[in-house]
Amino acid sequence: MSIITLTTDYGLKDHFVGALKGKILSEYSEASIIDISHHIDPFNTVEASYIISAAYSSFPKGTVHLIGVDMELNKENQHIVMQWNDSYFIAADNGILSMLSQKIVPQKMVAINIHDRLSSEATGMDVFVMVACHIAKGGLLNVIGKEINSIKQITELKAVISDDNNILKGHVIYIDHFGNVVTNISKRQFVEAAKGRPYEIIMKTKNIKTILPNYSAIASSDKYPIKNYEGEKLAIFNEAGFLEIAIFRSNPSKVGSANSLLGLNYRDVVSIQFKN
Amino acid sequence: MSIITLTTDYGLKDHFVGALKGKILSEYSEASIIDISHHIDPFNTVEASYIISAAYSSFPKGTVHLIGVDMELNKENQHIVMQWNDSYFIAADNGILSMLSQKIVPQKMVAINIHDRLSSEATGMDVFVMVACHIAKGGLLNVIGKEINSIKQITELKAVISDDNNILKGHVIYIDHFGNVVTNISKRQFVEAAKGRPYEIIMKTKNIKTILPNYSAIASSDKYPIKNYEGEKLAIFNEAGFLEIAIFRSNPSKVGSANSLLGLNYRDVVSIQFKN
Amino acid sequence: MSIITLTTDYGLKDHFVGALKGKILSEYSEASIIDISHHIDPFNTVEASYIISAAYSSFPKGTVHLIGVDMELNKENQHIVMQWNDSYFIAADNGILSMLSQKIVPQKMVAINIHDRLSSEATGMDVFVMVACHIAKGGLLNVIGKEINSIKQITELKAVISDDNNILKGHVIYIDHFGNVVTNISKRQFVEAAKGRPYEIIMKTKNIKTILPNYSAIASSDKYPIKNYEGEKLAIFNEAGFLEIAIFRSNPSKVGSANSLLGLNYRDVVSIQFKN
Repeated sequence: MSIITLTTDYGLKDHFVGALKGKILSEYSEASIIDISHHIDPFNTVEASYIISAAYSSFPKGTVHLIGVDMELNKENQHIVMQWNDSYFIAADNGILSMLSQKIVPQKMVAINIHDRLSSEATGMDVFVMVACHIAKGGLLNVIGKEINSIKQITELKAVISDDNNILKGHVIYIDHFGNVVTNISKRQFVEAAKGRPYEIIMKTKNIKTILPNYSAIASSDKYPIKNYEGEKLAIFNEAGFLEIAIFRSNPSKVGSANSLLGLNYRDVVSIQFKN
Repeated sequence: MSIITLTTDYGLKDHFVGALKGKILSEYSEASIIDISHHIDPFNTVEASYIISAAYSSFPKGTVHLIGVDMELNKENQHIVMQWNDSYFIAADNGILSMLSQKIVPQKMVAINIHDRLSSEATGMDVFVMVACHIAKGGLLNVIGKEINSIKQITELKAVISDDNNILKGHVIYIDHFGNVVTNISKRQFVEAAKGRPYEIIMKTKNIKTILPNYSAIASSDKYPIKNYEGEKLAIFNEAGFLEIAIFRSNPSKVGSANSLLGLNYRDVVSIQFKN
Repeated sequence: MSIITLTTDYGLKDHFVGALKGKILSEYSEASIIDISHHIDPFNTVEASYIISAAYSSFPKGTVHLIGVDMELNKENQHIVMQWNDSYFIAADNGILSMLSQKIVPQKMVAINIHDRLSSEATGMDVFVMVACHIAKGGLLNVIGKEINSIKQITELKAVISDDNNILKGHVIYIDHFGNVVTNISKRQFVEAAKGRPYEIIMKTKNIKTILPNYSAIASSDKYPIKNYEGEKLAIFNEAGFLEIAIFRSNPSKVGSANSLLGLNYRDVVSIQFKN
C-alpha cells in the first residue's frame, strides 16, 4: 500500500478535494490518501513549497506527494515529476519544486507526457491522478514522462550572511496557525555563521537574546509556575529546522501572537547579529 | 472494500464528524470513509445538492453517499435511499435528492423503515450509519426500506430559454473557495440553445464575449507572460459542467474575486444573449 | 487494524497534522487514523476534554485517542496514558484526562518513560506517535510507562444542586458549529434532581419550559409546516448527554444562533428551577 499525499489551495468547502480522492480511489483502490493541507493561500507557490518541505520527511520512503497549487497546464508551466530524497513530487513547473530542492540534487525529473493519452475532457487534475497512481503502484517515471535536466528556477528570498560575517539577515516566510512567525534562517545556516559566538536576534521592535531548545524552556526559573510565562516572546528552531519567533502559549484570537504582538508580517526582516 | 462518502453541515471543530466515523467503523471496520464536505452552509439543501452533484461521479460505481444536512426525521421529511447513476444516496427527503436527480430517473428509491429496530436512544445519524454500512457491505435496499415511487419535488431556480430562443437566463447557485461564481447554466443547455450562434454573457455590470476551454486560455497572446493576465475576468464551464465566472488566479483575500469584483452574489442573474 | 484518533489545536493549514499522520504511518503502516478535531481553541484544555468526551464512545473498544493540546513535556506536565472505559488516551497531564474521567475510575494509568530511548531530536509528538502505535499494535502499557495512581486534578466548573434541591445551576461549557450552547448539566444530573417535578430553564434573558426529545419536536402543532418554527429557541439533551440550548435550524452567519440571539457565552450561567 503506497501513500499519496495532497497539498492544494482548494479549501475544504467545495467538492474539489472529495472528487480528487474519488478519482484516486477509482484508479487505485488500495491507495492510502493523506491530506497535508488544502488551505494553501490561493496560487501561493512559496507557501506551498514551505508546507511540503516541512511535511515530506515525516512520510515513508516512496511516498507520492501531489501538489495542486497553480497547476493548470499552460505555455509556461509544464507538468513535472521530481524524485528527490526518495520521495516523489508531482506539480506544475511553477517554482514550487525548485524552491523545495535547492540544496539537494534531485534523483530524477521528468516532464509528464501522457496528456494526449487521456480523453479530451480530462483536466490537469486527471493527469496528476493518473501519474500519482502509476507511481504509487510502483510504475516507472519513464512510462509517464520524458527525462529533463532542469526545472524553472525561482529566486526566492534567502537568508544571507553579511560580508563581515557578523549579520545573518533573513525574512519571515510563513505565519502558522498559532500566529508564530517562521523565518528562512535555517538551523544549519545559523550554526555555520555563529561559530560559537554570542548573538542577538534583531526584529522590528524587539530583540531576543537566546534561541531555546523548546517552548517550555522559557520557564527559566523553578520558582514560578509555567502559567506565569504565558505571553512571553521566545525563539526556537521549529520542526522544519527554521528559526521561529513565538509567543509562549499564544492564542491569536485571544492574547495575540508573534504576528500581531511583535508586528511581524510576511517578508519582514529578522536578523541575527553575532558578537566578536 | 466499499466507499462511504460524507457530506454534512457539521463543520470540523465539533466532535460530530469524528463520532460519525467512529460509528461507521464500529459497524463496518472495512469501510473506506471519504469526506466530501463538512462546510455546507447550515441547513442549506440547495448547496448540499450542488456539492454532491459535482462530486459523486468521481467515485467508483457502488459508492454510498451519506448526506447529513437537515436530516432529522420529522413529520415532513422521511429518511430515504436513492439508487441513481449506479451510486447510493442516503438523505432526508428534503429536496436534496430531487434536485440532484432532475434529469435522470432513479433506479430505485426506498423509505428507510429500520428506525424501530434500533434502541430508543438511537439518533437519525445512527440510522444513516446502519443503512450506509448495510449497503456498503452489499446488502439489499429492500431489507432496510420500503420501495417508493416519488420523493418530494423542490422547484429550484432553473436556467430558462426565452420564447424567442435568444436569451438563456440563469442564476448564481454557488460561490466557491476562490470566489468564482457558479451559475445553473449547464454546458448541455448552452450548446442546445446556441446552435452555433455568437453570444455574449450578460452580468450585472460587465459582459464577457467568450467561454474559454480552461483558465489559462485567458493568456491569448504569446507576447506577454501569463502573470500579466492575473485579475482578468473570464468564463468557463467548470468540472461539474456549469458556466462559471472567474477572475484569473483570484485570491479572495488579496486581489478580490468574481464574487467581490463583479458584485455577483447568490441568486443574481447571469444571462447569455445569442445573436442571429 | 486498530484505530488511532487525533484531537489537536494544530489547525488544518500548517503541515503539522499531515506530518503527524506521516509519522504514524511510518511507524505502523496498518493504522487507521481518524481526525476528531484539529480546531480546538489553542491550549484550551477544557474544550479538548469536552470534545474527546463527546466523541470517544462512538469508537470501537481498544481505540487509541491521541490528544495534542498543550502537550509539550515540561516540569509540570508529564506525558501519560490512561486506559479508561476500554479506550486509551495519550495526553500531557494538564487536566484534560482528569476532567474526562471524573465519574469513572480509570483501569490503568502510566507515566510515559520512553523519552530517553528516542533520538535527541525527537519531539513530544514523536513520543506520542511511538506510544500510540505501540498500543494500537496491542503492546502493553508497562512497556512504555511506569504505573501511576493519580493524575493532576483540575476543578472545572460543575453543575451543582442547591441546598434546598430546587435549583440545578450549570454553566455554558461549549458553543458548537451551529451556535448551539452546550451546558455542563448532564441528563443524569437532571433526572436525579428533578424527581419528576415540573421545571423551568432559566437563562440570562429568556426561559424555556420544556426539554424536547429532539430538535424537530419544536413543531408542536400539525397545522403548520415545520418551516414556521425556524428561529425558535429550544432545549434538548445533546448526543453527548448535556443540556443544550438551540435555535431551530439556526445558521450563525444568517439568522443567528443561541449564542448570538440569546446572548449566551462561554461560562455564562444556565439554571434549572424545579417546582414543588
